[in-house]
Amino acid sequence: MPERDGTYWDRQEVRSPVDREVAIFGALPGLIRHAMDNASFYASRFERIDPDTINSREMLNRLPVIRKQDLPFRGQPERSLSQLIATPMARLSRMHVSPGPIYSPEGNRSDYWRFARAFYAAGFRPGQAVHNAFPYHLVPAGFMADAGARALGCPVVPAGDGPLDSQFDAIEDIRPVGFAGKPSTLIHLLQRARAENRDHSSISRALVSGETFFEAKRAYLRNDFGIDAYQCYATSDTGLIGYETEARSGLLVDESMIVEIVEPGGTAPVGDGEAGEIVVTVFNPDYPLIRFATGDLSSILHGESPCGRTNMRLAGWLGRVAEITAFNGVTLYPQTVIESANRHNVIGSIRLFVANHGLRLELEATDRDADLEARLATTLRDLAGLCSATRIDVVYRQPGELGQGSRLIEDQRQAD
Amino acid sequence: MPERDGTYWDRQEVRSPVDREVAIFGALPGLIRHAMDNASFYASRFERIDPDTINSREMLNRLPVIRKQDLPFRGQPERSLSQLIATPMARLSRMHVSPGPIYSPEGNRSDYWRFARAFYAAGFRPGQAVHNAFPYHLVPAGFMADAGARALGCPVVPAGDGPLDSQFDAIEDIRPVGFAGKPSTLIHLLQRARAENRDHSSISRALVSGETFFEAKRAYLRNDFGIDAYQCYATSDTGLIGYETEARSGLLVDESMIVEIVEPGGTAPVGDGEAGEIVVTVFNPDYPLIRFATGDLSSILHGESPCGRTNMRLAGWLGRVAEITAFNGVTLYPQTVIESANRHNVIGSIRLFVANHGLRLELEATDRDADLEARLATTLRDLAGLCSATRIDVVYRQPGELGQGSRLIEDQRQAD
Repeated sequence: MPERDGTYWDRQEVRSPVDREVAIFGALPGLIRHAMDNASFYASRFERIDPDTINSREMLNRLPVIRKQDLPFRGQPERSLSQLIATPMARLSRMHVSPGPIYSPEGNRSDYWRFARAFYAAGFRPGQAVHNAFPYHLVPAGFMADAGARALGCPVVPAGDGPLDSQFDAIEDIRPVGFAGKPSTLIHLLQRARAENRDHSSISRALVSGETFFEAKRAYLRNDFGIDAYQCYATSDTGLIGYETEARSGLLVDESMIVEIVEPGGTAPVGDGEAGEIVVTVFNPDYPLIRFATGDLSSILHGESPCGRTNMRLAGWLGRVAEITAFNGVTLYPQTVIESANRHNVIGSIRLFVANHGLRLELEATDRDADLEARLATTLRDLAGLCSATRIDVVYRQPGELGQGSRLIEDQRQAD
Repeated sequence: MPERDGTYWDRQEVRSPVDREVAIFGALPGLIRHAMDNASFYASRFERIDPDTINSREMLNRLPVIRKQDLPFRGQPERSLSQLIATPMARLSRMHVSPGPIYSPEGNRSDYWRFARAFYAAGFRPGQAVHNAFPYHLVPAGFMADAGARALGCPVVPAGDGPLDSQFDAIEDIRPVGFAGKPSTLIHLLQRARAENRDHSSISRALVSGETFFEAKRAYLRNDFGIDAYQCYATSDTGLIGYETEARSGLLVDESMIVEIVEPGGTAPVGDGEAGEIVVTVFNPDYPLIRFATGDLSSILHGESPCGRTNMRLAGWLGRVAEITAFNGVTLYPQTVIESANRHNVIGSIRLFVANHGLRLELEATDRDADLEARLATTLRDLAGLCSATRIDVVYRQPGELGQGSRLIEDQRQAD
């Protein structure tokens, strides 16, 4: 049982980086052997590998990267999910749908996706009720937050995308201290509650995920609604990967995994501090993922977090590898859209559409601001390294019009 | 750990009725004392009662009945839910919304609502995946079936009301043996799957609840889709109350509760075998409900179930107490609507609307059948004891038009 009245969820978070490397790479050969012994996918993929030799970051780098298209997809009946799972399907707890679509297995352990650590770092404490607006139907997001909060001792109201009126009732009656869900879901809930004169004042803390969390959104939640919001990064296949702490200095990597940053779509690690694709090795005995490419972009921050936790830190979620695209000979990165939004305190969703005739930046907001339009276009052009003649139209959308998706760049050139 | 390769979930199901009465009424004083010691609602309500004296069905009958309006409702801030819960709110697992709206607490025990017993009696066995279409958002239904299936060892696909296309994908890929959900949800899923040429053939068994389960629906599922469907009866506050077995002979009462049938809206037991309101006393240490009136109607069947289980049997769910209404001096019971539907093999939803100028029976079906209309009206008139001049219009509705509600009688006279 971790010590829960202290600053940290457990002592693993503050062990010396050397101790962590020794412990994790000491355990890695066992994980690889377990995967090879129990999941036929790994048995054939690692056929010529001696697990005992994979005991360092350098050796791990030599293993192939697993991409989503290597996993058992729909329409590939020769590939069964059971090839990847090291626990018999019949002994699993749940099966969830993961984007692809592939399926994400849930084993029987408490806090299977390890979210308790993220809740704890975000200041949630035992006994505080959590309003959980992540969906539970078919996708695992709701269950991830649910299991983590309950493992920490926080009762959960499984709100999902239930009717807002009932959610307001529940918030007024149960008076949850915490919220879990997407940032846009929280902002929508609060704005609607305010408009309808419903009391949301019990909520003072939030764990948000699933979307870019612009700095202006964090400030808006704090200043306008008194809510202290922390973000975490997780995927449907891996569970928690990174979490924010009170230092608000990047995302600490979870203690049950190894994170590498590799060339987007490739296999070799990028240079120190460079942005690239997040590749994880998860010590999950039911579903061991070894060098699994998430399709998400980030970079490693230098040094240690001021909060005292000693693990590696990610710079944040910087978009999807698949969104990187070229325009007029310039490579456009989703990170550039995030950075442009942050420089101008954008709160709503934002998306860059790439068309044959030019670029269009769409922005959700209730009020138009012509000055902001010009500044955003200039910043984006400068950060992306586009020539000054490149036209960037800025178009306002009503809140919600860009949908719940978290896309930052959408290439429409095929459709034109 | 119960013996799970046998016919019964546990030996409690086949103990002698005398042994059961002795065990349950031996434990009742302890339950009452626990409730009085830990929940202020019971401390004040039972102030003059010595728990040790409440050790028989006759003594239990003397206690007041608790109705939903006695529970802490919205808009009654002086009543807090914590008055009824015998576990500190901060140590609960989840809080759900129950119709009313009131709130339904979930404790930390495995299979908190005891659905595993119903799944087992319905022939579900460990390792068989279950497609769970009960909703998880805000209401407890999804979690009830989810926890029961998992306690039995059946992995769950938490489908809820997720997009049908994704549900079809999951059914084709995961090939669940079982389904859990409302009968109308299952029939809608199967009809749509057939229309869209999707493969649902893995599903051969279903546990259904939340609506009247007409005999014709059961036959339709078996003959047209090869699905063996069992019903159970549960409420958001109590969890499982009754479950069907392979004898298909009423609903066996769960082993963790005492069931009484009382005068609808009253407190005294009805005569032997008469229909009345279901009142339950639930041995739930987190949320002890003592003589809780469910608002639902049923009657007790005579004798023992042919399946060998020895507990009391309910005749089925016979509608809501609140739906009983008078028309032209005759009392209309929801059971009469159910019985009329059963006599004419009605598959779709059915509802009797009571208006100032007469009665209107609405029926969901794709094809109109004028002969059935006349027969239904005659049967309903005869069963209800209405005079032959009473006009009953029969109106067809498209499937889904009556909504997901389970109402059988709707009195519209206030609105006229």
